[in-house]
Amino acid sequence: MPVNFTPTPADQLHPVAGLRIGTAMAGVRKANRRDLVLFALDEGCAVAGVFTNNRFCAAPVQVCRELLAAGSGIRALVVNTGNANAGTGADGLARARRTCAAVAACLGVEAQAVLPFSTGVIMETLPVERIEAGLPAAQADLHAAHWAQAAEGIMTTDTLPKAASRQVSIGGQTVTVTGISKGAGMIRPNMATMLGFVATDAVIAPALLDALVRQAADASFNRITIDGDTSTNDSFVLVATQRAGHAAITDLGSAEGRALADAVIGVSRQLAQAIVRDGEGATKFITVRVEGGRDEAECRLVAYAIAHSPLVKTAFFASDPNLGRILAAVGYAGIDDLDQGLIDLHLDDVHVATKGGRHPAYQEADGQRVMKQSEITVRVHLHRGGAATEVWTCDLSHDYVSINADYRS
Amino acid sequence: MPVNFTPTPADQLHPVAGLRIGTAMAGVRKANRRDLVLFALDEGCAVAGVFTNNRFCAAPVQVCRELLAAGSGIRALVVNTGNANAGTGADGLARARRTCAAVAACLGVEAQAVLPFSTGVIMETLPVERIEAGLPAAQADLHAAHWAQAAEGIMTTDTLPKAASRQVSIGGQTVTVTGISKGAGMIRPNMATMLGFVATDAVIAPALLDALVRQAADASFNRITIDGDTSTNDSFVLVATQRAGHAAITDLGSAEGRALADAVIGVSRQLAQAIVRDGEGATKFITVRVEGGRDEAECRLVAYAIAHSPLVKTAFFASDPNLGRILAAVGYAGIDDLDQGLIDLHLDDVHVATKGGRHPAYQEADGQRVMKQSEITVRVHLHRGGAATEVWTCDLSHDYVSINADYRS
Repeated sequence: MPVNFTPTPADQLHPVAGLRIGTAMAGVRKANRRDLVLFALDEGCAVAGVFTNNRFCAAPVQVCRELLAAGSGIRALVVNTGNANAGTGADGLARARRTCAAVAACLGVEAQAVLPFSTGVIMETLPVERIEAGLPAAQADLHAAHWAQAAEGIMTTDTLPKAASRQVSIGGQTVTVTGISKGAGMIRPNMATMLGFVATDAVIAPALLDALVRQAADASFNRITIDGDTSTNDSFVLVATQRAGHAAITDLGSAEGRALADAVIGVSRQLAQAIVRDGEGATKFITVRVEGGRDEAECRLVAYAIAHSPLVKTAFFASDPNLGRILAAVGYAGIDDLDQGLIDLHLDDVHVATKGGRHPAYQEADGQRVMKQSEITVRVHLHRGGAATEVWTCDLSHDYVSINADYRS
Repeated sequence: MPVNFTPTPADQLHPVAGLRIGTAMAGVRKANRRDLVLFALDEGCAVAGVFTNNRFCAAPVQVCRELLAAGSGIRALVVNTGNANAGTGADGLARARRTCAAVAACLGVEAQAVLPFSTGVIMETLPVERIEAGLPAAQADLHAAHWAQAAEGIMTTDTLPKAASRQVSIGGQTVTVTGISKGAGMIRPNMATMLGFVATDAVIAPALLDALVRQAADASFNRITIDGDTSTNDSFVLVATQRAGHAAITDLGSAEGRALADAVIGVSRQLAQAIVRDGEGATKFITVRVEGGRDEAECRLVAYAIAHSPLVKTAFFASDPNLGRILAAVGYAGIDDLDQGLIDLHLDDVHVATKGGRHPAYQEADGQRVMKQSEITVRVHLHRGGAATEVWTCDLSHDYVSINADYRS
């Protein structure tokens, strides 16, 4: 069961002018499930994306990178679930391109205007003919209000669809930001995430959109981890349809730029946290905050060491305040000149350790009380400098093992 | 149940002249279990050790480092289980020193001649008075033949005691190498391990022994991982009692030096692999071999990425040849200029992937056959150079979660 997470109702997902969505059941891996999602963009949209740093990146990721680098006007996004088209070599690349060509033929656009995305099992051949066969149904289904169906259509081991939406006023106009995401395992995005799509009708130059997608990824998807496994298919795409009617944003630091960035980051963060809340087998949502580092990089090392430790994660699952495991993770995070004699550890408001040892006033009952909650903040202070960071993760439960032992069955 | 591992019978653990062992039930954490082990060394022994790189290293590790750096003649080792004396600040350091003083008083040696070791729960106060109370019984029990009892006396979540022994002929004399180890979780030794003690009666200069202990650690304990959690207490100590009667070894590259190194590495490797075979919840023993790297460091990155991936480990648990997960781990291991189009993957004798994609002849049934075995070799070829490495790990099962969720209960 997801941790404190209920899907946003379909009628609260505001359509984004200039963008329509159609879904279909293409039978990519399983019958009778929505597994094909088509986004059709009006002419003139700006599109920016960030993608996995996994060197075994999937064929569609390679194609996306090429097309976005070429800067061609993107007119469609096509997403299939059930097959990642990763670890598939040259044949996988050809199948990704064939998917784009099929979409292009359907919509009457250039093949270079179609970005492909895949998610699912790795190292299996993409059944591109099933996607081709499903496209007409997806096309017939195109509608601006189909965000909820799209969220469902990109799920794999997700137990619930993930979507978020908000509206802000910019230059006297209502600007919408709506997005969807998926992912529950193989989650440790590195520069991007396991499929996140956010669209806005804001008017913004493409170069600024590039900067904004990176900023949003760093503040959201790049701060989550479930199992430390960076996927081959992580992709986070931001579309600006330029339809909201306000004067174009030319500076992210302006009042208008900040308003848009806040909305995009807000939606992205909600989508990213939804992935953790629906993490495979998750029973707890854990915020790991590391303060007092010399720079953010070393704070991240410590935060991820804690967030990835199977021992820390099983202790959270058990609600067992075996908190020395957190100190051990701090110690092996990779800061070579760390002075353990300076470290503070808090669990929510409970001061657990000080100067590297148990706090004199710490009582196990206090740790126990916090560990029983479904949302917990671990706060480590390194006392080395002024940098800080925060990442979000979940616990490691029996269900994680069951889900991943049975995933293909 | 450990994977293909039965403890060496006590009568096959050869005593090492110059070293006696006594154990006691001190009630450090639980009553009625051997939890205190005392090694008494005759005068003139050489002792070398390597210790955890965890910056939150335990108090006894700090004391051991000090004493070995000071080069004082070591006369005793004292080990308690049930409490790690880590994350205990200045008070923990004082308690470790008090343990040494108590042993020194017992044996009539200097406190600086006693090396302390602890293992167990982190961030709890060491009940040093219980250790003091248990020492006379351990002293009364001192005997050269007590290796099996020592192996039992240092266990924590281990299900079986781990000991190994062999004899070689050096300069016409029989030389013995005998050792013990413990550890089943929080296992990802970094320069050392979770308590390994190996002794030999070989005659060897202390400076050479330092080199030998590092060489042995690199070939054994530094190649294993269970959960990627580097312990606060990892310690691997090599004792040479100098009693075997052959001419002193002055060069590890000589025939005699190589014979001793082979015996020490052989015993260390057996002890290290025993830890993996008895890994928490382990049902499979997995060798990850990475070849064709530019240097060993990048081979290690890849090998540990595979060995730590929860997704890879749960697939092994399920005997599910979901082998794309291995490619994903190769991709995120951290080699920035890795060319996925060159990668080969074998599972034992089965050629699974070539040029970064599924091998044309690969059949799922072949992968399935290997996955069902209790011992499996994963072999990745990077085709970047001539370096190679090998690490040993186990799968991730429900029992790992159960054991670590319940450890303190």
